[in-house]
Amino acid sequence: MTASSVTGQDETSIRELLAGQVAAMRARDAERLVARYAPGAVTFSLAPPLWNVPEVVLDVAGLRAWLDTFDGPIDYEIRDLVVEAGADVAFCYSLNRLSAVPKGMAEGFDLWFRSTVCLRKVAGEWLVSHEHTSTPFYMDGSTRAAVDLKPEVA
Amino acid sequence: MTASSVTGQDETSIRELLAGQVAAMRARDAERLVARYAPGAVTFSLAPPLWNVPEVVLDVAGLRAWLDTFDGPIDYEIRDLVVEAGADVAFCYSLNRLSAVPKGMAEGFDLWFRSTVCLRKVAGEWLVSHEHTSTPFYMDGSTRAAVDLKPEVA
Repeated sequence: MTASSVTGQDETSIRELLAGQVAAMRARDAERLVARYAPGAVTFSLAPPLWNVPEVVLDVAGLRAWLDTFDGPIDYEIRDLVVEAGADVAFCYSLNRLSAVPKGMAEGFDLWFRSTVCLRKVAGEWLVSHEHTSTPFYMDGSTRAAVDLKPEVA
Repeated sequence: MTASSVTGQDETSIRELLAGQVAAMRARDAERLVARYAPGAVTFSLAPPLWNVPEVVLDVAGLRAWLDTFDGPIDYEIRDLVVEAGADVAFCYSLNRLSAVPKGMAEGFDLWFRSTVCLRKVAGEWLVSHEHTSTPFYMDGSTRAAVDLKPEVA
């Protein structure tokens, strides 16, 4: 097996893991969403605090409670995904969209944000060691989060 | 050479690359800051747009113009750095601080943000393929960027 064929299989596995995340978000499947993380995973999320320790990242009940803050369907999309995979360390980045209606709100939101996912292969399986999701913010004196940006149409 | 000693040397090289970034920021050395990027590097930055294409990432004159928007010394710090290095793909994450005084402003800012840096080894040298820096934002209806957060004192 050549190095490039190893990488091709690894890239396929990682793309399947992320497709599984999309399916799990739409299905509100907290167990499956948490199962993609490695034991010591640390995340930098859209909302404060600055970072989430593994006890928070791996908290299925906490994630289920967050999913329960939305009424009706949750939509999730991953776009423009780039995957760079080595033998046992990989990273990927993409533009993601979350659409949902918070409970008690008349209208939902449609938020595009940046996602960087860093992985390790553990016992032959790719798991997420670190995840960073964010919007930029306007440096016009307002420091408003740039929640209104959209990718250009390809 | 064992796998672990390879990783140890790679981790050392990556930590040196980031220490060089800190030194270059403080020295306002745009060439050195750009030299750490791989040719196709894409970044997700603190400010819009959603992402920066390689032509922007590798634009020394543009970076110099940005550095020139600050009066007096620029301070930069990288804290709580975690490095995960494979043979030719690596990632690291940290909490970073930028302190500077924008020209025309009486007071400077002191901004803590999250940084994820993804690297490839190219011809024996680690280069940054992707970089993601951000603050979270408050989901309290204000969508203010959380520019006031600080790491806990260790």
